[in-house]
Amino acid sequence: MGFTTFGEIMLRLTPSEHAGKINSAQNFGVHYAGSESNVASSLAILKNQVQFVTKLPLNAVGDGAMRSLQSFGISTGNIARGGHRIGTYFIEIGSSIRPSSVVYDRAHSAISEMTFGELDWETILKGQKWLFISGITPALSKSCAEATLLVAKTARKMGVKVSFDMNFRRTLWKDKKDARSIFDAILENTDLLFGNTGVLKDVYDMEVSGANPIDQTISAIEKAKSTFGLEQLAFTVREHHSASENKLSGVALLNDKTTISNSYNVEIIDRFGTGDAFAAGFLHGLGQEWGLDKTLGFATAAFALKHTIRGDQHTSTEEEILSIFKGNISGHVLR
Amino acid sequence: MGFTTFGEIMLRLTPSEHAGKINSAQNFGVHYAGSESNVASSLAILKNQVQFVTKLPLNAVGDGAMRSLQSFGISTGNIARGGHRIGTYFIEIGSSIRPSSVVYDRAHSAISEMTFGELDWETILKGQKWLFISGITPALSKSCAEATLLVAKTARKMGVKVSFDMNFRRTLWKDKKDARSIFDAILENTDLLFGNTGVLKDVYDMEVSGANPIDQTISAIEKAKSTFGLEQLAFTVREHHSASENKLSGVALLNDKTTISNSYNVEIIDRFGTGDAFAAGFLHGLGQEWGLDKTLGFATAAFALKHTIRGDQHTSTEEEILSIFKGNISGHVLR
Amino acid sequence: MGFTTFGEIMLRLTPSEHAGKINSAQNFGVHYAGSESNVASSLAILKNQVQFVTKLPLNAVGDGAMRSLQSFGISTGNIARGGHRIGTYFIEIGSSIRPSSVVYDRAHSAISEMTFGELDWETILKGQKWLFISGITPALSKSCAEATLLVAKTARKMGVKVSFDMNFRRTLWKDKKDARSIFDAILENTDLLFGNTGVLKDVYDMEVSGANPIDQTISAIEKAKSTFGLEQLAFTVREHHSASENKLSGVALLNDKTTISNSYNVEIIDRFGTGDAFAAGFLHGLGQEWGLDKTLGFATAAFALKHTIRGDQHTSTEEEILSIFKGNISGHVLR
Amino acid sequence: MGFTTFGEIMLRLTPSEHAGKINSAQNFGVHYAGSESNVASSLAILKNQVQFVTKLPLNAVGDGAMRSLQSFGISTGNIARGGHRIGTYFIEIGSSIRPSSVVYDRAHSAISEMTFGELDWETILKGQKWLFISGITPALSKSCAEATLLVAKTARKMGVKVSFDMNFRRTLWKDKKDARSIFDAILENTDLLFGNTGVLKDVYDMEVSGANPIDQTISAIEKAKSTFGLEQLAFTVREHHSASENKLSGVALLNDKTTISNSYNVEIIDRFGTGDAFAAGFLHGLGQEWGLDKTLGFATAAFALKHTIRGDQHTSTEEEILSIFKGNISGHVLR
Amino acid sequence: MGFTTFGEIMLRLTPSEHAGKINSAQNFGVHYAGSESNVASSLAILKNQVQFVTKLPLNAVGDGAMRSLQSFGISTGNIARGGHRIGTYFIEIGSSIRPSSVVYDRAHSAISEMTFGELDWETILKGQKWLFISGITPALSKSCAEATLLVAKTARKMGVKVSFDMNFRRTLWKDKKDARSIFDAILENTDLLFGNTGVLKDVYDMEVSGANPIDQTISAIEKAKSTFGLEQLAFTVREHHSASENKLSGVALLNDKTTISNSYNVEIIDRFGTGDAFAAGFLHGLGQEWGLDKTLGFATAAFALKHTIRGDQHTSTEEEILSIFKGNISGHVLR
Amino acid sequence: MGFTTFGEIMLRLTPSEHAGKINSAQNFGVHYAGSESNVASSLAILKNQVQFVTKLPLNAVGDGAMRSLQSFGISTGNIARGGHRIGTYFIEIGSSIRPSSVVYDRAHSAISEMTFGELDWETILKGQKWLFISGITPALSKSCAEATLLVAKTARKMGVKVSFDMNFRRTLWKDKKDARSIFDAILENTDLLFGNTGVLKDVYDMEVSGANPIDQTISAIEKAKSTFGLEQLAFTVREHHSASENKLSGVALLNDKTTISNSYNVEIIDRFGTGDAFAAGFLHGLGQEWGLDKTLGFATAAFALKHTIRGDQHTSTEEEILSIFKGNISGHVLR
Repeated sequence: MGFTTFGEIMLRLTPSEHAGKINSAQNFGVHYAGSESNVASSLAILKNQVQFVTKLPLNAVGDGAMRSLQSFGISTGNIARGGHRIGTYFIEIGSSIRPSSVVYDRAHSAISEMTFGELDWETILKGQKWLFISGITPALSKSCAEATLLVAKTARKMGVKVSFDMNFRRTLWKDKKDARSIFDAILENTDLLFGNTGVLKDVYDMEVSGANPIDQTISAIEKAKSTFGLEQLAFTVREHHSASENKLSGVALLNDKTTISNSYNVEIIDRFGTGDAFAAGFLHGLGQEWGLDKTLGFATAAFALKHTIRGDQHTSTEEEILSIFKGNISGHVLR
Repeated sequence: MGFTTFGEIMLRLTPSEHAGKINSAQNFGVHYAGSESNVASSLAILKNQVQFVTKLPLNAVGDGAMRSLQSFGISTGNIARGGHRIGTYFIEIGSSIRPSSVVYDRAHSAISEMTFGELDWETILKGQKWLFISGITPALSKSCAEATLLVAKTARKMGVKVSFDMNFRRTLWKDKKDARSIFDAILENTDLLFGNTGVLKDVYDMEVSGANPIDQTISAIEKAKSTFGLEQLAFTVREHHSASENKLSGVALLNDKTTISNSYNVEIIDRFGTGDAFAAGFLHGLGQEWGLDKTLGFATAAFALKHTIRGDQHTSTEEEILSIFKGNISGHVLR
Repeated sequence: MGFTTFGEIMLRLTPSEHAGKINSAQNFGVHYAGSESNVASSLAILKNQVQFVTKLPLNAVGDGAMRSLQSFGISTGNIARGGHRIGTYFIEIGSSIRPSSVVYDRAHSAISEMTFGELDWETILKGQKWLFISGITPALSKSCAEATLLVAKTARKMGVKVSFDMNFRRTLWKDKKDARSIFDAILENTDLLFGNTGVLKDVYDMEVSGANPIDQTISAIEKAKSTFGLEQLAFTVREHHSASENKLSGVALLNDKTTISNSYNVEIIDRFGTGDAFAAGFLHGLGQEWGLDKTLGFATAAFALKHTIRGDQHTSTEEEILSIFKGNISGHVLR
Repeated sequence: MGFTTFGEIMLRLTPSEHAGKINSAQNFGVHYAGSESNVASSLAILKNQVQFVTKLPLNAVGDGAMRSLQSFGISTGNIARGGHRIGTYFIEIGSSIRPSSVVYDRAHSAISEMTFGELDWETILKGQKWLFISGITPALSKSCAEATLLVAKTARKMGVKVSFDMNFRRTLWKDKKDARSIFDAILENTDLLFGNTGVLKDVYDMEVSGANPIDQTISAIEKAKSTFGLEQLAFTVREHHSASENKLSGVALLNDKTTISNSYNVEIIDRFGTGDAFAAGFLHGLGQEWGLDKTLGFATAAFALKHTIRGDQHTSTEEEILSIFKGNISGHVLR
Repeated sequence: MGFTTFGEIMLRLTPSEHAGKINSAQNFGVHYAGSESNVASSLAILKNQVQFVTKLPLNAVGDGAMRSLQSFGISTGNIARGGHRIGTYFIEIGSSIRPSSVVYDRAHSAISEMTFGELDWETILKGQKWLFISGITPALSKSCAEATLLVAKTARKMGVKVSFDMNFRRTLWKDKKDARSIFDAILENTDLLFGNTGVLKDVYDMEVSGANPIDQTISAIEKAKSTFGLEQLAFTVREHHSASENKLSGVALLNDKTTISNSYNVEIIDRFGTGDAFAAGFLHGLGQEWGLDKTLGFATAAFALKHTIRGDQHTSTEEEILSIFKGNISGHVLR
Repeated sequence: MGFTTFGEIMLRLTPSEHAGKINSAQNFGVHYAGSESNVASSLAILKNQVQFVTKLPLNAVGDGAMRSLQSFGISTGNIARGGHRIGTYFIEIGSSIRPSSVVYDRAHSAISEMTFGELDWETILKGQKWLFISGITPALSKSCAEATLLVAKTARKMGVKVSFDMNFRRTLWKDKKDARSIFDAILENTDLLFGNTGVLKDVYDMEVSGANPIDQTISAIEKAKSTFGLEQLAFTVREHHSASENKLSGVALLNDKTTISNSYNVEIIDRFGTGDAFAAGFLHGLGQEWGLDKTLGFATAAFALKHTIRGDQHTSTEEEILSIFKGNISGHVLR
């Protein structure tokens, strides 16, 4: 009775020197990450049964990704091996007024050339509780768009609930109409939507009202609910102060009840993978049947806490996240 | 006419990567530290004659601790060698809302199995001015509790002044009554007490009044003075904003005169060893016969400055600490 | 139908600097290793189903060991969590005339305080093909000696074959009679013995004849066969030239047939875990039903190849080991 | 039609460990830097034609400086090789209340023993648009003071505009009268002056009025204009909050028009080379004929942005600096 | 009157840890390398005028390659910028019986999608003395094969001599007939051929005679001379002992005179880029008009010396290579 | 009753990357070393009372040298502080046919500008057993030459035995006659001479006979004995195979008895400081009154063993060196 996530995992290369630049890096720190594998690793660390499904090249770099996934306790038995390469991206961690930046080199990756039929999805999804997918995978290629939709449909058909994080990678789409068209189809098969105000504006030109980011997010979540006909939505709220400091909150709407989380001002060590930490935290809370307030509170604490951890992976335990949720944010040493 | 400190020095292992986690560390940075050896190294760097007394295993790791101590100019000639192991601890440096945390592996260390009689304390303490001990050593084992008390008594008898930092490591004590009982006996032989509001509450259930942390500390220091019958007390004041930022002050009471230091808002590089920096700074000021205001000001400047230095050791020179004390805290480059 | 190994996994700390010394190390490289877990990781990398059974403390360091084991694909579901600490050892990698050396700090580890009854061995061993144990675990404590023997007996009873590597850690035994006594009992439950000439001499005072190390090993293996009444024995042969260069071979005796492998002169990157690589290679060959010559050849190639890999773990794939076995040892670049 | 800068480039050694101290550094990070070479590298990264002129020893360290300069695309064809050593300096990066500090070891460097006549300046300066020099070079030695003045005069004579950054290194001058005397002569040959309120006070005892640092800088720039008879002046404004945070602005006066830039609050990664980034940005704007507002705005954005980049070199592209100038300082990730 | 090389430069990622494996690397060391750029950097370090021509993506990784090339003093003014990605490869440095291995990820690189017409080759080649190309570029794509041939023809027509290193990357060709066909056309435009016995066998099934590798190479070079109608040929000779030790020599034939170099037994730090060091050394000798013996001797010394240097680039100076050529190979310290 | 050594300690900078080059180093490893301080650290590690006398600048780099010296247990109480700089040198560690090389930047160091009268040598030398000096210090400056001679004379006068290592740094002397002249004067005050065949030839044009290096060294030692009128001489014998491998021996002559040590073939990690390890080992043996054979055997074992240790310092314990002396050179792991 576990979780399945499906998508791309990439080789992430980050200049090893603190605050280093890509163009003069002498060493790159190595991580393997991607939205859906990040959700998987968080769920595994929270002691859930999780499998991650993707396709990886049959070489030592693909093996590296496998080892990384396994280290968290993620099941990798249904990962296809083959294709030509693993997608790669290079990250510069920003600081203060200097933004973080990403150079992608992900075209022609193994998963982007994969089709739905390569894997036996009925076997993969049997007995699963939740499927997690994101808006990135459909952007990778036509076959990936088809596969993502078919996986969602298959899950639905089999009684596996579908959660969808509407990530929108502008540069991967020729036209946002393409994104809208495939997202619409996925949303018809979605039980739980993760998102935020910005992505709804970017993809659906959805205008929101409200005097502050929280109110705007409430407005957005209500519009999304009615527009897409969904009953479960969980949105992150991010106020940018600088590359080093953000204010973070969460808003969720479940079966007509809207909840707002605490807000956290955090100094940022690594901003990547934070939305994934939120999604994993929320799914974990649902799995634990914690009720909406605790579930959103836990998800938002995870979201905030991830900003203080290097790499895309959120490696905090349930106990550590709950401690933040309970308000232990003033930094007393734990001995 | 120097200083002697007695206690445990441990191997401190910290993930080498900035803000790294213990569970995925590929490298650990190596320090050797402990409350009493930290006080010794600070005093040595401030150009005092200092010896540190402990017991270390006769192997390469014990040798590493010896080399570390010697590098600061600490006399190590009275360190016993033998026993089975050096105590070890693992540190995760927190950041923002994420607290620092410590995993201890210190049971069965050489010093914890040591007895008072293993060393010739009369020779060791001959001609010394100050002994520094802390509440940690009595917590290590029954023989350590006995030894600490006997060392304090011997010092007293020989005219060496005794300073006692009432550190309280909750997890090392079965019952706080045990701590209270040995602390009471030590306090009878104490000339100068280091502490803070929290520890008095934890160990002695001492309630304090006051609208703010400074006032509360004044209240605490006065209660401690009357309760324990002491004439010299120096307390740190810490206000936690987050794991990355604290507000720091000091309060001291000497011969009925109470003084309050400046306060410092500091961003934290490494929070460990800061109380030890305060104690060393205070002892140094007494040794220099600077008078209470300068002594407390210097100790508090050292306390604050240590937060910006990696490792448990406070490696700042007297000139650097005095410069902070004089108010040079706006970061002009020293060329 | 897989493999189960049982024993201690430790935190291995190696000075990060190439050829660095423990007493002046500024950083330690982190590995988690132990004879039985090394065998498990090799078998997992060779794509076998493997589980490793041990006890680990419930803290971040124990979590680190878990993550390391999982990264190789080892099943960790039957690892007990609890106790006080993980055993630790420090390694200096030797070079040329300077020997490698080890400082152990393994007393009081979680597994050393563990009893047979803490785990449900009948469930653990159900359906397993091979159990692997070594002579190290019985040396850790009385309860470990009992547990090891009981595990072997349980396996035997359940039809799981028992392989035993007669590792002998001199410093862990008060008297070698103690080792002999427990080894005797284990040998009565052993199907396959791993060893070498030296250990038989050390533990059993077994004298061997022969003009060269290979002949001496044949002599030893035959004596062991008759002394212990075993049908399957596989021994390593090591000729020390220096800390940087060894000559390596293997000898095996299966059902009265003795075979000798090729010999390899290797330059050594890391000498640790090499016997474990041999055992894993041999078990893998048996599992693949390759016949004695290929099985021994593969095991010896793995034994030799491991010397060129840093860390205790042998991370070579089956293809890489087979390539050595086929004689590709002249270093042509694989593109 | 490019830029020429002339001065000293040094070996900069910075403890590799984040926030490390010189006296216990195990590794030093290596940069090659100096005010005039920093201006050259910024200009080269901004895709200008730049040459840097200096003298470097003919050894592997001198070669290292050459490689560093070339890597940015700086022309090094007119660098003299010879002399005895490269100047060296050691840096401790401050944090919070702890100031950054510098230990110089630059006496007897190759350039300090160089004379004007060693190079053919008429050939070097032919067809150049701007010469950049600073107040540091004249401080190195008598021959350097003479050379700097002669280079400025030669440039003037040949129609190359002269920009002069009035850096004042207190410890390099016996008496500030010496500095004033050579600065006066250089200023007679200067077209564009870089400076700040502090240096005018230090060297010329120039008192300024104004309620805040911006107003004080306007006052200083107007006094400098009338005192030195200059038409182009660009000054930085720095408000120190701590070693980790500064508020930064710029003020310029061109042909009787005074402009004030935006201000930036920045968290500091590396404070060194920031004034050089300002000068390079200003010269770049003039070269692009951007007009005063954009030129000063760009220079100040470069000044602020450099604080977030490790090393003395400002490695940001024109696009990155313009983005800051346009107000993108809230740290949105660039994908 | 300089050298032009044309081909692909790639991002080389090597596990940072000495002898590390790709699948568990935590950090990758960064180099930018490729056969033709390696020849360019060697020639530049030998103080020749060199330009390198390629196509690089317009992102921070492409900028990194530019900075690396410039650091050696290579002219990069004719490098096209654009396309989608830089080719990448991962290297495991072998040791002893463990071979080095390479994982390529170079498909779809900017240069592989480039055409001859994108650059103005007549301008590029004007006044050049030598063009260097290799057999790798034609293997990248059809357009690259065409471009390489057209570049060679253009050079020939303009009086620029053409040197061709017959590198053969098996995995990049569908059929070796394709290689042969394009190589034949290039050879018609070749003045100087670099190669070895192996490549002639692989591509042309050319059988050689001779009792030892030197004699076999003489046989190969004579056959190549008559088969291809060439007057200048320089071949490397490599005898593999292990991944850590090779014996290296050179054989050249110029205008009917055959010469054999000294042989060197070397321990290998990094085996990559060694053939390129040979080619650069030979071209340098021709440029210096040293005569055949010194030219081949220098090239072979460079070939051998490169094996002791990390990275693909041969960074030795002319003085250092000449010293090897003169027989200073016993390792006396140079002070 | 201890040892005093007098001379220069320098900052040693070595590229951090294994086998790295100075001209492209991104990080330098930091050591503090010099012939006389190396002898002091070896003697301290061997548990002798040792003081090192020199002059160091009063800055953080000088403090670093102090901390390094103290870490070994060397007394630093008689080190003068002041002057302008610490001498610096850069090292490239050679490998195979590539020699190690050194770039010195030591002119104008604090000690080079020091005079005999700055220190109270009678107090320093009171009660000492041995003084150790070398031929390097007299080469630093005229005042150093005078000081070295006066120190030797003072020692002699006070009954402290003088040992002199005739190091000859060619590049520090204008004419070898200058060296000969000061060496002659020192030799008149010398009790024990360290040297080798090469230095006698270089400085004194002393020709030796003998079929092999051992015989030649015997010849040299006998000539030196008669030429200089000495009774105690200990010479190293080095046969260079490559930068990675040397054969090492020792020859000593005491009171007319000549002894030859075992020879060791070693693979070299770091060749620097090896002669100093020999001298320290020999002095230690004399101090222990071991007799000539064991003393020379120990010194030569130390000499050989140091080649396998990084840095100039020989950090082996007496037990480790004795083990080599006893023939344990085949690399059995010490557990």
